[in-house]
Amino acid sequence: MESLPLHKAFTLIEPGPVTLVTTHDGHRDNVMTITWTMVLDFSASFAITTGPWNYSYAALTKTKECVIALPTVDMLDIAVGIGTCCGREVDKFEKFGLTRAKAGQVRAPLIEQCLANIECRVVDIVKPHGIVVLQGVAAWLDGDRKERRLLHAIGDGTFVVDGRKCDRREMMRSKLPDGV
Amino acid sequence: MESLPLHKAFTLIEPGPVTLVTTHDGHRDNVMTITWTMVLDFSASFAITTGPWNYSYAALTKTKECVIALPTVDMLDIAVGIGTCCGREVDKFEKFGLTRAKAGQVRAPLIEQCLANIECRVVDIVKPHGIVVLQGVAAWLDGDRKERRLLHAIGDGTFVVDGRKCDRREMMRSKLPDGV
Repeated sequence: MESLPLHKAFTLIEPGPVTLVTTHDGHRDNVMTITWTMVLDFSASFAITTGPWNYSYAALTKTKECVIALPTVDMLDIAVGIGTCCGREVDKFEKFGLTRAKAGQVRAPLIEQCLANIECRVVDIVKPHGIVVLQGVAAWLDGDRKERRLLHAIGDGTFVVDGRKCDRREMMRSKLPDGV
Repeated sequence: MESLPLHKAFTLIEPGPVTLVTTHDGHRDNVMTITWTMVLDFSASFAITTGPWNYSYAALTKTKECVIALPTVDMLDIAVGIGTCCGREVDKFEKFGLTRAKAGQVRAPLIEQCLANIECRVVDIVKPHGIVVLQGVAAWLDGDRKERRLLHAIGDGTFVVDGRKCDRREMMRSKLPDGV
């Protein structure tokens, strides 16, 4: 994986893909599937919605660190599998054959099979709404990966895969942040 | 448009589509393109990120009402056009030929051309992060619409269109909310 400039990291989350969020609680790594995510600004600031019903939540709030990894369409059954079992009972990295790579700035691991990984620090938890505010501190992209289509959860057990791309860069020129 | 049960409204936002958010400031209607959105729970509770740089923000915070409308791929140039001009200077409904329909519970208008519309009330504004927390109070779906593919913004001026669908309902059975 190659380093992705942080000012481009929001482009990974803005389209609303299914994400895998890894944590490390001081003893063990864990990973959860999160589809409730949002960009907050162009500086790699993100929000995710989670809560104590996710076993990873304790590690996330204790360590204030995580990695947001982006699985592609060939990883759909892994993403669904991760979302339907609990890290309290099972080592999900072993169960789903995920390869860990060491992150640069956080103790939560990167997932090598994913298209991209964003290392994040928790900067705020908006308790009444279950919103966790994250600041991206490093980002990684697998530029050699052939399958790059991301997944979008509908929430009813079905998923939509990235289809064709449309370029409106020229129309949007005035609104695009520098260097994106 | 037919009424969509509110407990299914989160399935419109979870996949991360480009949205059009309408407001009514007491005198005029306006509409903005918002791609920074997130589901907060299964009860039609959503978050969007916006701020004073959007002309609609004043109406949104004053009236505490809006409608989230979902444009399909055939409306891409309308969505980009709405996002690159300002309601202070132009009547966007007229400029882009949008047909308004009266909402049931809010003064902001529905957009008839869109696949779906969610009437929302502002329940909180998390100021430091620009997060507006919305509660959906009614939802509408155009069941007869042929083009149903939604758009996803990358944020760099390109967009991805909904591609093929994958069904994992059986695998996810244990995690799906009732009736979705």
